[in-house]
Amino acid sequence: MRRDVTARLVLDVQSPATLVFEVAVAGEHEPVESLTISLDGAAVTPRELRTAHGTRLHVVEAGPGTLRLDYAATVHGCADEPPVDELDLFTSLRPSRYCESDTLGPTARAEFAGLGGSDLLAAVTSWVGTRLAYVPGSSLPTDGAVRTLLSRQGVCRDYAHLVVALLRAVDVPARLVAVYAPGLDPMDFHAVAEAHVEGGWRVVDATTLAPRDTLLRIATGRDASDTAFLSVHHGLATLREVEVTAVADVLPDDDVTRLVALR
Amino acid sequence: MRRDVTARLVLDVQSPATLVFEVAVAGEHEPVESLTISLDGAAVTPRELRTAHGTRLHVVEAGPGTLRLDYAATVHGCADEPPVDELDLFTSLRPSRYCESDTLGPTARAEFAGLGGSDLLAAVTSWVGTRLAYVPGSSLPTDGAVRTLLSRQGVCRDYAHLVVALLRAVDVPARLVAVYAPGLDPMDFHAVAEAHVEGGWRVVDATTLAPRDTLLRIATGRDASDTAFLSVHHGLATLREVEVTAVADVLPDDDVTRLVALR
Amino acid sequence: MRRDVTARLVLDVQSPATLVFEVAVAGEHEPVESLTISLDGAAVTPRELRTAHGTRLHVVEAGPGTLRLDYAATVHGCADEPPVDELDLFTSLRPSRYCESDTLGPTARAEFAGLGGSDLLAAVTSWVGTRLAYVPGSSLPTDGAVRTLLSRQGVCRDYAHLVVALLRAVDVPARLVAVYAPGLDPMDFHAVAEAHVEGGWRVVDATTLAPRDTLLRIATGRDASDTAFLSVHHGLATLREVEVTAVADVLPDDDVTRLVALR
Amino acid sequence: MRRDVTARLVLDVQSPATLVFEVAVAGEHEPVESLTISLDGAAVTPRELRTAHGTRLHVVEAGPGTLRLDYAATVHGCADEPPVDELDLFTSLRPSRYCESDTLGPTARAEFAGLGGSDLLAAVTSWVGTRLAYVPGSSLPTDGAVRTLLSRQGVCRDYAHLVVALLRAVDVPARLVAVYAPGLDPMDFHAVAEAHVEGGWRVVDATTLAPRDTLLRIATGRDASDTAFLSVHHGLATLREVEVTAVADVLPDDDVTRLVALR
Repeated sequence: MRRDVTARLVLDVQSPATLVFEVAVAGEHEPVESLTISLDGAAVTPRELRTAHGTRLHVVEAGPGTLRLDYAATVHGCADEPPVDELDLFTSLRPSRYCESDTLGPTARAEFAGLGGSDLLAAVTSWVGTRLAYVPGSSLPTDGAVRTLLSRQGVCRDYAHLVVALLRAVDVPARLVAVYAPGLDPMDFHAVAEAHVEGGWRVVDATTLAPRDTLLRIATGRDASDTAFLSVHHGLATLREVEVTAVADVLPDDDVTRLVALR
Repeated sequence: MRRDVTARLVLDVQSPATLVFEVAVAGEHEPVESLTISLDGAAVTPRELRTAHGTRLHVVEAGPGTLRLDYAATVHGCADEPPVDELDLFTSLRPSRYCESDTLGPTARAEFAGLGGSDLLAAVTSWVGTRLAYVPGSSLPTDGAVRTLLSRQGVCRDYAHLVVALLRAVDVPARLVAVYAPGLDPMDFHAVAEAHVEGGWRVVDATTLAPRDTLLRIATGRDASDTAFLSVHHGLATLREVEVTAVADVLPDDDVTRLVALR
Repeated sequence: MRRDVTARLVLDVQSPATLVFEVAVAGEHEPVESLTISLDGAAVTPRELRTAHGTRLHVVEAGPGTLRLDYAATVHGCADEPPVDELDLFTSLRPSRYCESDTLGPTARAEFAGLGGSDLLAAVTSWVGTRLAYVPGSSLPTDGAVRTLLSRQGVCRDYAHLVVALLRAVDVPARLVAVYAPGLDPMDFHAVAEAHVEGGWRVVDATTLAPRDTLLRIATGRDASDTAFLSVHHGLATLREVEVTAVADVLPDDDVTRLVALR
Repeated sequence: MRRDVTARLVLDVQSPATLVFEVAVAGEHEPVESLTISLDGAAVTPRELRTAHGTRLHVVEAGPGTLRLDYAATVHGCADEPPVDELDLFTSLRPSRYCESDTLGPTARAEFAGLGGSDLLAAVTSWVGTRLAYVPGSSLPTDGAVRTLLSRQGVCRDYAHLVVALLRAVDVPARLVAVYAPGLDPMDFHAVAEAHVEGGWRVVDATTLAPRDTLLRIATGRDASDTAFLSVHHGLATLREVEVTAVADVLPDDDVTRLVALR
């Protein structure tokens, strides 16, 4: 399998800011890649930081001006299955900003009592998929899983937050993953859940908008607070353009009953 | 300086559960210590896991019965100042479950506009300290900083959450630390905030209930979800008793205008 | 049918306060009744106000001291069915403090699509009754229907709020009624919903804790903010004792499929 | 004084609906007025209902089509001061859907301790006016005073909700009033608070966007749930156009220290 992805961001930086990008393919891959950043046409060299999950942050201190980021990567073949770390499993059980598994505990325990393993995963996925309507623009950046459940609508991030919150509430470690998603339409950055079931990390996409086998990991974290493609600190910057592409040489059918690892 | 601390927990385990304890002194110290856990009188050996911040988790799989944990540690001298890691600084800017810095952004930016460094730290500490009343039992486990601000009361955890959330909202990295607190009255586990200011991690305790110089770190994390002294998974257990002691051979006066590192 | 009810309240009035009681049987009845209020043993005469729904408020200005209220009423026979007023129907469709029908709209529309009349009433009653657990002390005075649904537990007031909110969300006028409830165990003030279905106001009690035919109306309003048995203004008073009795000479079986008017 | 106001609404009614309009000048005036409603060009006659506060509701059952409403009124002179009814004062102390005075109690009591009468009114008005930024489009229909305070921004309705909630929390009866507002720019329906202070109902407009003396009452209620210019029940209708005009022959300066009654 071969996957080709690109991301292009254009920002207006209004006042000097620290910009953090999470757009590069995660560390378990060995992509052929290029990352170019410029401010008003002058090249800027980012610092790269890498998290324990292999998420790569690119940090830039940018003065006022127009900042452009162009990223392109080609990935041949698949990575190993995501490593399982016991400490990480405990962390992935904790409530987080947008996955309020504590508040959703009564709902999850009532709806999914007695289920486990892949049955539980299938039940949660189906429950979220049938309850929510995919409505672009329907949610706010501060919305978490509770508000998503009440509004019964959202985008990929909201679906994933609700899946993660419900799973954690019934003691299944779960986390959020930002991905490139070949086959997604309209194309954009995508977000899915990853759950630790039957010994491994399995990808869950209650939106069913893209086949899971070809998803390509960018960032992994507790929720969208860890996986934002852009964070702005100490200044002001406005996103003017986002353009994402993601292509796989094969787009397999996705049988939702299979457990799939994100590789 | 010499610090002696103990913790004693008694739990009723109603159904087989995975118990995670965060009661041991953090990894930067070299304490003389003992940790004894028993279930219905029979010794149980915990597994120890350690986070990047040096937080030590003790994990026990326990069947039904009465579980007792006894911990005692003596620490001579102080540790080095907490290490500063750039990735950790970015993580410490993100909103978390109980520190909703995104929702509190407008409040923080309005109240603390134009302040920085130690002035900002002093302003936030004073603001929180004067707005909240310390009322034991006034808050719920699911309460975060927003609810604390609205209710204008809380316990140490709530004070710390509000400090952390406000600081993050104005781009100061901040995190929660569970500590042993010599001088605290009534004695209990204590929680404080830690903020990255003027190049180092500084401890903030808006409750001013214990001198900062003798606080002894247990667990470090985004908020109380990371620093709970007990987490129960996959089963049921009820806390029946908690007893904490913490003594320092000297209890220095605490001048709130000084920046203090937790050592 | 004969119904005998009593209420006894004892309050510590800490600072001069305006106290408003809603304990008397509603205005559509002609009870044989007595209401005695005293402050530190001296008789106090309340002013009586009456709402458009027949709710009777008894208002007392009380200085510091111990205030006792004793109420007793005997009601023979039943009142006419509650009058239907078009303006009131529109008011009863609006969201209110504890019945956030706007926020619960997506839930209600998804769960009860296509139902109407008594089928809808039965569906909402059953949905609420099976989702919630009756847990004394589980809710806070500021909790509304949203929080009740999330916590999946509550007391009579919470059940009624959730019923009212869901009904309003699907365009059924609904309101809250505080009642005396012969047969309730343990005995206390009770709260139920009243819904306008098939041309009349029908009583809904998703707790099924007392037969509906013998319920005796006290106060009617949008939610518990209108029907509290005690409100304290301009001062401080603490409730020390509440004792309620309610007896009917017959306690009919309650067939939940019947539409019942509160009379 | 002479005031001329008009309102023009155009709606797409997608499925048969009950439409309730609150656009006519309140009942204490004797305006020269006209109200014309048509569906796809055919005249429709509304039913008029009137609340205890003099709010006039115009109710129309409308099938699918384009509905137009045109209202015009001329009011000569001023009405008497709003009547004061004791029961209404108690109702105006209760928390409501968008004025969560219970949740805001701790904030209000801390910020306005010791103030009363016109000083309190001035303090609340100024507090709200300086904390909030007027930002068109910044709030959602489900936002109440709590969310407004956290977001520190809103439109007239949000300002009024926050004023009302804070006042009720310190035992000042307060309510919401929808008004025509000569001098408002950009012209639209306007919302203000009305507080019972020093024996009468006084108008409070923390936005200070229009002089208070020439405001013309439309609807009075607990909050925006009672004063919406359009409510849609049992069907679907989308607002396509709203046009409001309001002119007074004199536009007096407004000295914010004066107590003003809405007449």
